[in-house]
Amino acid sequence: MPVETADRSGVELDAEARKVGVEIDDFFSRLMPSRGDGRDLLFEAMRHAAIGGGKRLRPLLAVATSRLFGLASDRALRVGAAIEAIHVYSLIHDDLPCMDDDDVRRGKPTVHKAFGEAAAVLAGDSLHALAFEILADPETHEDPFVRSDLVLELARAAGPSGMAGGQMMDLVAEGQSLDLPTITRLQRLKTGALIEYSVEAPCIMARLPAEGRTPYRGYARNIGLAFQIADDLIDHSGDAEAAGKRTGKDAEAGKATFVSIYGPERAEQQARLLVDQAIEHLADHGDEADLLRAIARFAIERNH
Amino acid sequence: MPVETADRSGVELDAEARKVGVEIDDFFSRLMPSRGDGRDLLFEAMRHAAIGGGKRLRPLLAVATSRLFGLASDRALRVGAAIEAIHVYSLIHDDLPCMDDDDVRRGKPTVHKAFGEAAAVLAGDSLHALAFEILADPETHEDPFVRSDLVLELARAAGPSGMAGGQMMDLVAEGQSLDLPTITRLQRLKTGALIEYSVEAPCIMARLPAEGRTPYRGYARNIGLAFQIADDLIDHSGDAEAAGKRTGKDAEAGKATFVSIYGPERAEQQARLLVDQAIEHLADHGDEADLLRAIARFAIERNH
Repeated sequence: MPVETADRSGVELDAEARKVGVEIDDFFSRLMPSRGDGRDLLFEAMRHAAIGGGKRLRPLLAVATSRLFGLASDRALRVGAAIEAIHVYSLIHDDLPCMDDDDVRRGKPTVHKAFGEAAAVLAGDSLHALAFEILADPETHEDPFVRSDLVLELARAAGPSGMAGGQMMDLVAEGQSLDLPTITRLQRLKTGALIEYSVEAPCIMARLPAEGRTPYRGYARNIGLAFQIADDLIDHSGDAEAAGKRTGKDAEAGKATFVSIYGPERAEQQARLLVDQAIEHLADHGDEADLLRAIARFAIERNH
Repeated sequence: MPVETADRSGVELDAEARKVGVEIDDFFSRLMPSRGDGRDLLFEAMRHAAIGGGKRLRPLLAVATSRLFGLASDRALRVGAAIEAIHVYSLIHDDLPCMDDDDVRRGKPTVHKAFGEAAAVLAGDSLHALAFEILADPETHEDPFVRSDLVLELARAAGPSGMAGGQMMDLVAEGQSLDLPTITRLQRLKTGALIEYSVEAPCIMARLPAEGRTPYRGYARNIGLAFQIADDLIDHSGDAEAAGKRTGKDAEAGKATFVSIYGPERAEQQARLLVDQAIEHLADHGDEADLLRAIARFAIERNH
């Protein structure tokens, strides 16, 4: 992640992201100790995937949005960890030989390469369950209505009406020439749902009425799409080092993406427009939204 | 499932089980319609695995326990469906080539055989998320504390401290000569945790204080173990038709089981003892516990 000390707002995105990364690592380390029994390989595989890597974009979004409402940072972090657990489980399963068949993730061997396929399936399943265990724990919020609502919305964002459904659409899309509305819908389910939840969850914790959530939902929807276009651009450019994973996969799989439809120049313009719109949604906020603004600008940085 | 109209209690287990089976099928059918988009294969795979098969032991346990407390049957059914969704997801993932590599389940082709491995991974993941979506929905219970607690305990029962952890222990146990305490622990995590939750969930819905749950926990623990021994006996006997799946797998994999340690006769005695103990835990109840008693006796029937 690039150092952004010269950011217009003065927010040091790099330092904030590093802090969240360290806190998420600490949280996961406490949650996934070895038990000294036949599950050691499982916990090792979970730690391999969950600790010490990734941009932590989703927890960072949860922390940044929580700041708008003055929520306690340890709670924002628990919710961020639950979201990251879902994200990491989806990466583990997505990397399996029967899915994208990837050997490298976040610059390390994928879980199935390091621990075998069976452990990879179970490590993903375990992180999936852990996410809901974290949210339903009274330590996440004292109001059981908030906890129940956090669970309901995460289940929707992760399941067949969200991430898992989007991954299925992505799998059957190989070799098909999808149109723009279909790609937008696919990406909104596959990656957008969890990014939108990262902003929605703090709104739930702040007990914000539905009508008050519109700007934050607009922000989240815009950066979700911008982030996906940026990801397509990285895949298209073939810079595996910047991506931390194999690139050129979309073209290889014959997948239609924003870049294949728009072309790289227009795709980049579109992403910049989305970022401007995202920031526009925060117009009623002052300094407390600077971190969200910095994240929006970062979404389309080349080197994330 | 055998017709048990001559059951001592007069409870018609077969009819009760059939009714729960139909209601679970209806519930899943409404929950998993085709969406007319790239997710059709996903929903078809989910329906293939979740509808029209299995003993529905766990939903039946939830319904039977709810009867003790006079809980509304539609709520017991929703909780039963959530538990069954977890159970079915675990079967789908367990049958994958990288796990047990099974071709037949509940007398039908396994999901990866019928729909491919990628769809099987995603169908399991989708059912996993759906379980928590069902529980956190206000229709399951009006009290958010109850919903949150239902989620917390199911996440624990399904995750690395429960089912998924037990499956990992089972995988690494191949070819190892485990001792009895280790096998008991492994099975309690792998299959016991979800069976115990099926009885615990109605206690949560009835807002029973922890100290009042002891007999039901005793019942659930005993039948969980009895059920596992009966399952080992079926696998040992090699009656694939009765099992609805391939048998003789444990011996083939060199796995230590209750049967390999006790021998079949003593294992069967042990299972009968556990059933008697389970029924003993219900001594304070009258007719309203007859279904739970019938389920306990059924747990060791040969033909389940």
